[in-house]
Amino acid sequence: MVPHLTTALTGPLLDLERKFLDAHTSIEQWFRAQWLDHTPPFYTSVDLRNSGFKLAPVDTNLFPGGFNNLNPAFLPLCVQATMVAIEKICPDAKNLLLIPENHTRNTFYLQNVAQIAMILRHAGLNVRIGTLIPEITTPTPIDLPSGQQLLLEPLKRVKNRLGLEGFDPCAILLNNDLSAGIPEILKNLNEQFLIPPLHAGWITRRKSKHFAAYDRVAGDFATAIGIDPWLINPAFAVCGKINFQERQGEECLAKNVDQVLTRIRAKYEEYGVTEKPFVIVKADAGTYGMGIMTVYDAEDVKALNRKQRNKMSVGKEGLQVSEVIIQEGVHTFETINEHVAEPVVYMIDRYVVGGFYRVNTERGADENLNAPGMQFEPLAFETSCSLPDPGCAPDAPLNRFFAYGVVARLAMLAASLELELELEELESASGSGSGSAKNEEQTTKMDAQPS
Amino acid sequence: MVPHLTTALTGPLLDLERKFLDAHTSIEQWFRAQWLDHTPPFYTSVDLRNSGFKLAPVDTNLFPGGFNNLNPAFLPLCVQATMVAIEKICPDAKNLLLIPENHTRNTFYLQNVAQIAMILRHAGLNVRIGTLIPEITTPTPIDLPSGQQLLLEPLKRVKNRLGLEGFDPCAILLNNDLSAGIPEILKNLNEQFLIPPLHAGWITRRKSKHFAAYDRVAGDFATAIGIDPWLINPAFAVCGKINFQERQGEECLAKNVDQVLTRIRAKYEEYGVTEKPFVIVKADAGTYGMGIMTVYDAEDVKALNRKQRNKMSVGKEGLQVSEVIIQEGVHTFETINEHVAEPVVYMIDRYVVGGFYRVNTERGADENLNAPGMQFEPLAFETSCSLPDPGCAPDAPLNRFFAYGVVARLAMLAASLELELELEELESASGSGSGSAKNEEQTTKMDAQPS
Repeated sequence: MVPHLTTALTGPLLDLERKFLDAHTSIEQWFRAQWLDHTPPFYTSVDLRNSGFKLAPVDTNLFPGGFNNLNPAFLPLCVQATMVAIEKICPDAKNLLLIPENHTRNTFYLQNVAQIAMILRHAGLNVRIGTLIPEITTPTPIDLPSGQQLLLEPLKRVKNRLGLEGFDPCAILLNNDLSAGIPEILKNLNEQFLIPPLHAGWITRRKSKHFAAYDRVAGDFATAIGIDPWLINPAFAVCGKINFQERQGEECLAKNVDQVLTRIRAKYEEYGVTEKPFVIVKADAGTYGMGIMTVYDAEDVKALNRKQRNKMSVGKEGLQVSEVIIQEGVHTFETINEHVAEPVVYMIDRYVVGGFYRVNTERGADENLNAPGMQFEPLAFETSCSLPDPGCAPDAPLNRFFAYGVVARLAMLAASLELELELEELESASGSGSGSAKNEEQTTKMDAQPS
Repeated sequence: MVPHLTTALTGPLLDLERKFLDAHTSIEQWFRAQWLDHTPPFYTSVDLRNSGFKLAPVDTNLFPGGFNNLNPAFLPLCVQATMVAIEKICPDAKNLLLIPENHTRNTFYLQNVAQIAMILRHAGLNVRIGTLIPEITTPTPIDLPSGQQLLLEPLKRVKNRLGLEGFDPCAILLNNDLSAGIPEILKNLNEQFLIPPLHAGWITRRKSKHFAAYDRVAGDFATAIGIDPWLINPAFAVCGKINFQERQGEECLAKNVDQVLTRIRAKYEEYGVTEKPFVIVKADAGTYGMGIMTVYDAEDVKALNRKQRNKMSVGKEGLQVSEVIIQEGVHTFETINEHVAEPVVYMIDRYVVGGFYRVNTERGADENLNAPGMQFEPLAFETSCSLPDPGCAPDAPLNRFFAYGVVARLAMLAASLELELELEELESASGSGSGSAKNEEQTTKMDAQPS
């Protein structure tokens, strides 16, 4: 379980990691100051790319699905961070309802659900699992590969409260990213804590808004510690009216691909990077690596064949993709046993609680590893992310993981800003926050105290 | 480093641990509710005794001196808990002054200081170490057995602020238990956070007040989870006017020893315990295992020889012992490689962050292991204290350590009550809290927010 990093790290990234190491105390101070003004999500996972010259987030998930992949040695950290989160959000909560994704056949995912439930129980909550699957009308046990069993129960709505038969929770934790929209049964739950708030779901979120927020965060952070923000920040652009099947919006796409590639080229030149620049084109809403392609040349997006167009046009839950983000591609230079490896960092509240590598034997360094049907091997981080040691080399695992934890936390902070702005927009659209005041509070107050 | 527990656990303690396991979620809820009304000390260590039929705290230290003995695997837990504590007490603090004990020759202790400083730095504080030793007038590096170096610097007081040359801290963390009284230089520091507050020092604290508070806490907890509080609570009595050298107060001592022994005998009979009851007589103020004796019979305290009387009459820093606590002795039944082993649990803020065993080759099961000159071997706990597994036996390390963590946290909660009551007494004695309002707030408010 010890990842052996064979990355040939040279140049700027070592410099960057050294900067992080030297500034590690002030980096923590910087974060502490940020969290005085912003509320971290309950839990977050961040996919990173480490190109050897650049370390950047490429996806920030507010419904993390891989807690089962973390090093078991980090479990006490998860429990402690969960205790902290619960004390802030709902200190008097005893019963918590966990609502997972609907894919019951993905037992790896269900092991994640079991792990989250276990962490919550150790943190002092009575946890039961309610499912949105309409076919599940009675409590249904599901056997997991680990030998555990998970009991999925049908949700029961009584007026403005959601629960299960014989179970009235004070808090509801979503591990369902709401890609398919907000189910009626989750609307107007103004008596219970809903974590995270509904506008954290992919029906509302846009990657472009996240990365716009990240742009601000990375800029402020880079100024604070004296680095070029590009070293941690992928360039991006957006096209809002695409229809791949009807070949609408190709011009917009090609123009933006070209602009982003041009920006990357200029930076590669500045840093003497000889790699070939590329962008990733992906759905602006949604997750699970659907509707994603790697593009080296603007002309390529005009010459998509039918199969490629079909692939790009459908996102998670079969939703039509009409908005895409064109994001600077960051090469994956880390390898484990000669296989491409991408780090994923897990956080609960504002704390990094672990991470793992996605290791893939089939994909190249410029492709997305989080793709449907992909066979990735999770490989837990061997050490924690909170113990940088300036006495060791910047690429020693402790220090490498610290750097990962820093960039992942920047992405988490961006998610906080993104959710705050989203809430403001929702409030100004609806006139006022009537109807769900309790849940909105969670994202606007620093430390919700018991009422 | 894996402690092999050879304790032949039978009867009530297994029952107790099973109760803890079954109730682990509600135990966490109970603690969470307590911490809504009380503020945990910044850090705490608790010495426990496990007799096989009883698990009880015997000493609660608010200036823990053995962070260097914890399992390095728990370090991330320490860092995370410290971040939580700092965020609550002084979120905008950047510079922290750490003031250790004066014994510079005890390099084991100084490794503890280095470890605390390291944890604080990882939590995002600039830490420097100021010493109360008058002879140290210039920055003095001290080599540690670990190969590290510790820099002790002379304190510098400017009006109402304490610092070092070129270092103006916003927070001051004491790792000095103030047994010798409160130095002038620490008085009236009303502009800086003083952690813990001065009345947490042994010049003010009394073991009897702590155990009176523990009595309440253990009683409430026992009611909540349905156990006999005696299983976690040592009986005690106090004699306030003793002079061992002049043989004053012997009658009071004998009478109280007899009363406590009588109470123990009744409980031993109730539970069918065949061990011989004993009490520990020790100084009501102070620490470091000075002025301690084991007594089996009230007559014994009347027949002390000169050597015994001398030993009992002097506490830490050479202070005269005039108040003693007579505490139910709890046999040490845990052994590691046939040596007596006593658990010590470490906490930062409200979180258990690790622990170790004191293992002693020379002492008996009814003696105090924390004695001057004693050669104890620290043996770090192999697993965390926050992950009970009802699927394992109650004496599996995970579960044993969870039980330790529960009782240690009860003692920490008692310390919080004790400090609150002490503060009330101080305030009513002085009329109002003028002069040190900032520091008093820390012990009376749940979550101090930035001002």
